[in-house]
Amino acid sequence: MRNNLTLGFFGFGCVGQGLYHVLAETHGIKATIQKICVKNRNKIRPISSEIFTYEKSDILDNPEIDVVVEMIDDATAAFDIVKAALQNGKSVVTANKRMLAEHLEEIYQLQQRYGKPVLYEAAVCGAIPILRNLEEYYDNDLITSIEGIFNGSTNYILTKVFEERKNYADALKQAQELGFAESDPRLDVKGFDPKFKLAIAIAHTFGVFVKPDQIINLGIDKISEVDLKFARENGYTIKLVVRAFKENGKVYGLVAPQFLEPTNLLASVRNEFNAVIVQGAFSEKQLFVGKGAGSYPTGSAMLSDISALTYDYHYEYKKRKQKDSNTFSNDAVVEVLVSFNDKSLVSPQDFEDFKGGYQGHGNQYMNGFVGLEKLREWSALEGISIILTPQFNLVSRTHLKQRQPLVA
Amino acid sequence: MRNNLTLGFFGFGCVGQGLYHVLAETHGIKATIQKICVKNRNKIRPISSEIFTYEKSDILDNPEIDVVVEMIDDATAAFDIVKAALQNGKSVVTANKRMLAEHLEEIYQLQQRYGKPVLYEAAVCGAIPILRNLEEYYDNDLITSIEGIFNGSTNYILTKVFEERKNYADALKQAQELGFAESDPRLDVKGFDPKFKLAIAIAHTFGVFVKPDQIINLGIDKISEVDLKFARENGYTIKLVVRAFKENGKVYGLVAPQFLEPTNLLASVRNEFNAVIVQGAFSEKQLFVGKGAGSYPTGSAMLSDISALTYDYHYEYKKRKQKDSNTFSNDAVVEVLVSFNDKSLVSPQDFEDFKGGYQGHGNQYMNGFVGLEKLREWSALEGISIILTPQFNLVSRTHLKQRQPLVA
Repeated sequence: MRNNLTLGFFGFGCVGQGLYHVLAETHGIKATIQKICVKNRNKIRPISSEIFTYEKSDILDNPEIDVVVEMIDDATAAFDIVKAALQNGKSVVTANKRMLAEHLEEIYQLQQRYGKPVLYEAAVCGAIPILRNLEEYYDNDLITSIEGIFNGSTNYILTKVFEERKNYADALKQAQELGFAESDPRLDVKGFDPKFKLAIAIAHTFGVFVKPDQIINLGIDKISEVDLKFARENGYTIKLVVRAFKENGKVYGLVAPQFLEPTNLLASVRNEFNAVIVQGAFSEKQLFVGKGAGSYPTGSAMLSDISALTYDYHYEYKKRKQKDSNTFSNDAVVEVLVSFNDKSLVSPQDFEDFKGGYQGHGNQYMNGFVGLEKLREWSALEGISIILTPQFNLVSRTHLKQRQPLVA
Repeated sequence: MRNNLTLGFFGFGCVGQGLYHVLAETHGIKATIQKICVKNRNKIRPISSEIFTYEKSDILDNPEIDVVVEMIDDATAAFDIVKAALQNGKSVVTANKRMLAEHLEEIYQLQQRYGKPVLYEAAVCGAIPILRNLEEYYDNDLITSIEGIFNGSTNYILTKVFEERKNYADALKQAQELGFAESDPRLDVKGFDPKFKLAIAIAHTFGVFVKPDQIINLGIDKISEVDLKFARENGYTIKLVVRAFKENGKVYGLVAPQFLEPTNLLASVRNEFNAVIVQGAFSEKQLFVGKGAGSYPTGSAMLSDISALTYDYHYEYKKRKQKDSNTFSNDAVVEVLVSFNDKSLVSPQDFEDFKGGYQGHGNQYMNGFVGLEKLREWSALEGISIILTPQFNLVSRTHLKQRQPLVA
């Protein structure tokens, strides 16, 4: 148990400043920020300039610094920092979900090699302590699925669209003005940001390292006014939902917008809140809701990681050790409602189990089970909107053939 | 890190059998049950009789047993078992909320004296990992309040009453048949069970040991058909809610039924589910929802405690060490709607801030802020139903005088 940690920050944007204030206001742990490395020499900084440096080596090669706190935007540069920090015997705290998702297996191996931990609670659903809970609490529970709302910006946009009947463009604009959206809004609205988080969560839930490219992500950018009308008429809301489940050693996962009945637990998760539902064999259904982004909530999660370093906490990746035979697979089908204008884009033969097609609101609709690879094809085309049906019927191909519902 | 723990069980009812099965089905930890001590020699047991004993000393004085798992009903006998186990150098896992609430300070001291941990995640909201999160994750966050639905039986009853328009007596009967209710249903419907859990949660949230007698608890047993009608007409539901908050070194807490707006996060927590909302200065609002009772969810939480013992986990009671100046106080007022038949029972002078009175549905109503001690007086009388208003305006007397809302 060490009571005084010396920290070096990389980055001093929204998250860095949040953590700075959180550290100043807390009294439970003693941690001193020795240096803050930033890129832009001309930006006016809100605190005394002496603490800033423009040289990475002032932190990475500084023997007094125990912990590197990485909070920059650029995923490639961030990974280089993490690698160098571990090589130099420093622990790392980071919230960079893209960097983590793309390099998680390497980061796992680097931790083993250099014996120093990388903690990243803030990277998955901000203030929700989901990784720590997956690592610690569910270590002996047989988890069957994890799902939720892993992106606050799109949830904010969809909440505004449904509750205030805002149009899509206005809602997106408002979210960006309030600082919720990523600096590149495509990461949010196209479902990349929640996919990065899902990839990280899958490692801690099922012990599988999956590259984000493997996971199919649909966004909310193709949702049309016609879809919104359909949802309202049926009493549904739409949320951008992630889901992964395990069956016979295979892990399946997907990011996509979904119609939700009002009784669905996720339907009541509003604005910038995130949610995670973990389904375990013994604990049954568990829901966690909290702020997924923002300066203080993210800072709070990072503070918690820094605090954990005082007692030498590290992720054990227990499930990886328990069952290293799980592999990620896209050999699954999911039930969707597809809407489109141009009849040549979609045909009943595209479905593995076609349920029906009809016309309405000047649009074509088709409903049925479709393979994930077909979903990926459609998502690359303009003029097709794909929304999952309220049941989130994502099942393995084997299951569809047996005509048995997999997950209630 | 020890991989094989030897366990001695006390009790083999619903929880004991749940844990037995959970242990048999999990493969992450190795723990062997050596003996199960039960009271009733004539009961037919679902597993081989050789493992059973009727002598406490077969477990407590057995040097091979590392962990005593206490799962009996009787709080006094349970405390004796816990004490003896610690004295004999054994760790303890228990789910006995009444025993814990009544003896928590002694149990804290016994742990310090004998250097062995007592873990009790299952005692507060079953499968929800709230204690571990309060201990670990929020250790440096400044928590301002904790609230939630801490009793599954009453939540089940109220859900049935509101959603299926069941009458109160039928719903209670159904809950008991399904095994949700405590063996003594008064512990549930009069709000004692959630009070025990709140007392334990307060210790881990604010570092204060409070005897359950100090916390005022109203139940759902005095709710009348008239109250239900009032709720329905106003679009409210009613939940049995607990709440504690901190202000200027004082901790205030209460268990009471409350009218809830449909947008309240707790309103959507249905059936036997429990919920906890933690409000922190940095992490902001966090919600946890999960099963609060039942054989497997409780067993799952106890399994997690057993698993934690393999790496010598113990509660640090960090907040007690951080701020031992907090004290519990009932010097607070809360906004209520009181309904009654007999005009002599309640008068406007009983309120510290009387807002209004009226008649309807053949009943008298009064609304306003009332002191907690007056609430305690009223709760002992027949013919008065007290329900908190949707805002859960529990504020210190000082605050009421300043006419400032304390908690949003």
